[in-house]
Amino acid sequence: MLVKAASQSLADQLAERFAERIRTGLLAPGTRLPSVRQCAQQQGVSPSTVVAAYDQLLAQGLVEALKNRGFYIRNRAVAPVNSSHNAINLMVFDDAPARVKTTLEAQHVPVNATALIRGMFHGGSEQPQPGMGAFPPDWLQTTFMAAAVRRVTSGKQLQAFSLQYGEPAGDGGLRQSLSTKLNALAIHAAPQQIITTVGATHALDLVSRTLLRAGDYVMVEEPGWAIEFARLDALGMHILPVPRGPDGPDLAVMARYCELHSPKLFVSVSVFHNPTGYCLTPGSAHRVLQLANQHNFYIAEDDTYSHIAPEHATRLCALDGLQRTIYVSGFAKILAPGWRVGFMAAPTALVERLLDTKLLATLTTPALLEKALAWCIDQGQLRRHAERIRTRLNQARGRSARLALAAGCTFAAPPAGLFGWVDTGVDTELLSQRMLDAGYLLAPGALFHASRAPSTLMRINFCTTQDAQFWQVFQTVRAGM
Amino acid sequence: MLVKAASQSLADQLAERFAERIRTGLLAPGTRLPSVRQCAQQQGVSPSTVVAAYDQLLAQGLVEALKNRGFYIRNRAVAPVNSSHNAINLMVFDDAPARVKTTLEAQHVPVNATALIRGMFHGGSEQPQPGMGAFPPDWLQTTFMAAAVRRVTSGKQLQAFSLQYGEPAGDGGLRQSLSTKLNALAIHAAPQQIITTVGATHALDLVSRTLLRAGDYVMVEEPGWAIEFARLDALGMHILPVPRGPDGPDLAVMARYCELHSPKLFVSVSVFHNPTGYCLTPGSAHRVLQLANQHNFYIAEDDTYSHIAPEHATRLCALDGLQRTIYVSGFAKILAPGWRVGFMAAPTALVERLLDTKLLATLTTPALLEKALAWCIDQGQLRRHAERIRTRLNQARGRSARLALAAGCTFAAPPAGLFGWVDTGVDTELLSQRMLDAGYLLAPGALFHASRAPSTLMRINFCTTQDAQFWQVFQTVRAGM
Repeated sequence: MLVKAASQSLADQLAERFAERIRTGLLAPGTRLPSVRQCAQQQGVSPSTVVAAYDQLLAQGLVEALKNRGFYIRNRAVAPVNSSHNAINLMVFDDAPARVKTTLEAQHVPVNATALIRGMFHGGSEQPQPGMGAFPPDWLQTTFMAAAVRRVTSGKQLQAFSLQYGEPAGDGGLRQSLSTKLNALAIHAAPQQIITTVGATHALDLVSRTLLRAGDYVMVEEPGWAIEFARLDALGMHILPVPRGPDGPDLAVMARYCELHSPKLFVSVSVFHNPTGYCLTPGSAHRVLQLANQHNFYIAEDDTYSHIAPEHATRLCALDGLQRTIYVSGFAKILAPGWRVGFMAAPTALVERLLDTKLLATLTTPALLEKALAWCIDQGQLRRHAERIRTRLNQARGRSARLALAAGCTFAAPPAGLFGWVDTGVDTELLSQRMLDAGYLLAPGALFHASRAPSTLMRINFCTTQDAQFWQVFQTVRAGM
Repeated sequence: MLVKAASQSLADQLAERFAERIRTGLLAPGTRLPSVRQCAQQQGVSPSTVVAAYDQLLAQGLVEALKNRGFYIRNRAVAPVNSSHNAINLMVFDDAPARVKTTLEAQHVPVNATALIRGMFHGGSEQPQPGMGAFPPDWLQTTFMAAAVRRVTSGKQLQAFSLQYGEPAGDGGLRQSLSTKLNALAIHAAPQQIITTVGATHALDLVSRTLLRAGDYVMVEEPGWAIEFARLDALGMHILPVPRGPDGPDLAVMARYCELHSPKLFVSVSVFHNPTGYCLTPGSAHRVLQLANQHNFYIAEDDTYSHIAPEHATRLCALDGLQRTIYVSGFAKILAPGWRVGFMAAPTALVERLLDTKLLATLTTPALLEKALAWCIDQGQLRRHAERIRTRLNQARGRSARLALAAGCTFAAPPAGLFGWVDTGVDTELLSQRMLDAGYLLAPGALFHASRAPSTLMRINFCTTQDAQFWQVFQTVRAGM
């Protein structure tokens, strides 16, 4: 919120706030600024303050004034070398089911997804945000993490693994621990089938780069995670969005895509799907794999939320035995997002090629953190920690869901996992902008659609929405829209 | 070497060795195995042992016997999805200078570059190898590294930066330290222009992915680093090899490429170029930048060897003031290869786009190691350590160069920096295979050419070739060819 201070005028503060959002892309080119009157009301300042702020933005070349139509964000001064950078390649087929077609046809000024993601990752002084994609830091606090780091950095160990590049596949000890851990999920992967990465994101990146070439077709669940859409787009792939339902992906749509475009890969979050929280059923898993065999595509199964899911949850990799499936997961959602340790377990025939891609991208990954993680797994500490987190999350989910319903929201999917997929009844892109002024970062529904279609949905983090105050502000802001 | 042991027959050992090399790609598909007689002689075993070993390889489907022509490595069982995976895209122009044309026209069964790289990274029990691309671990030993790690992992610090993703651009403290460090090289980059990465490799990867799209043209110095060729090829780029001379890249060839193909990027190692050791002259630097301005391409300057170079060495980024140049470096060559900390300093207008690519590839990078590195820089420890390394390297270079000359080699470039570019008089690809049997990993010249043309050159690491015994084995093996 704007605060009267000797050091900076209110107009300067307001101009700076807009400038920052424009610069980072949170306000996309072509977006209309609120009218002077609206803005003055929203910010609790005088219209002359807003005029002064808008004048500064004009002078900086960040906005343009269109006669009688208001102020609009200008395109960034430096045009991207590749004009397709922010435009997602979407494939439409003529006889698509109506609901898919609606989504695919939607046109919208694209939001800069990475800007929002970056906002989510800003740590520091701010309180944990409703839109954030991970557990709040205080949830992840443990004593065993420090013990693990002390252990692996004592004596000559540190020298041994710091002064060499290390194994291309990743620390051998950790790969053994992960092999054992996967066994409990009925996924049988030898340590030789496991490759460590810089978080699950890096694993998905390596899979895409190994199996796909620019121009290839890839199926991705929709709604789905913005980073996945943006990465595939940046790599030059054609994205085929597959509607995700309560049981699994829409098989009819997938079959049609297979006939028309021969996609090479399907990217799926089977368990506690982001953002819906849906879990794949065994029947749906079986049919997805049948389709994969019939049409010869690979499946990257992103099991990022495995730590908060029961071991018996259905995973494609368990049914398939890692034949056409690649298992991807990490530890950002349970232990230490800042360590950036993820991994994949792959079919034996793909391991060497995936390893090559890892070498070309980063050579190796830091052994120190991999060894510390292995210790946490081997001592059973991580498992017990995950149990505690699950219990706490169940309570938080109950509380947040009650508050969301009381605030007049409905759930588009039954509350499950870390995230709620909530219908607010208003355009959540606009809502997000307004809530940002009040100090809250939301995750608007458009972020989860390849087409960036406007949406009344938003994703909430159950850990960070247990607070009645947030929902009060939410209701006030929504009422003013 | 093969050793008689109760646990494994000589034939088993021999078969396993070949199988390992085939599996990892050190022996490429289509390569002919030595004849039974040759192999028996080379390995000091009986012909019947070799026959038994070859039979095992046949049974495993790794080789095939062609009537009256011997044994050949079979193609890998699983064909890559993208057949171009191992084939470098080379552009030829008709009126190229003769020496360039010769290189470009050469055809050769491609060696799997990543296999050799992986071999180089295998640490453990083996002695440091003549072909390795870094300092031997014992050269990098310090006491301050452990102190730095202890410092940043004590108390609440560890929790603070482990439990959040961290800043997308990388640790703020490290970026400040790097900004100061670059200043000493006359490269003026604000901390906001610096992005940390998983080693210099990752930085080069992010630059390519941000500035190029599949099918774009990119100029790379030749000879040059295999990983660079392989990465650009895997990303679907057309590689334009630019001959690197003592003063800098061949400007006439670059100008011609610019007219014909409008390349978007030039990748260059200005100082202590790998593998030649050449350093860019100020005049050449000026003309390269003129060309870049005239033809509108960016330059990625890989300054991996900056720590062993004088501060006053000519860098393109210093002349250019980071307008069309992106500075890339890391700390694998001076402090800790296993930490995987690198960075880039970029033109302000590119920072946001590069940051987006980093997010899509790995989200963030591990703050723990970045903070530890910042401490090493800020305390002046790294600078003093680098001075000691330089002194020791100067002595090693003198010794190794004398031994190389005494062994009948000549230097294709004056000895400088970490590597010697040495002419052996024989095909170094074949030499490498033979030396591997004797326990030595070499870096054959073909590795440094985009076309993988056969070469009598090899790159030696001055630290690991001071040993008279290596050169004796080298002479014996070469004499037997």
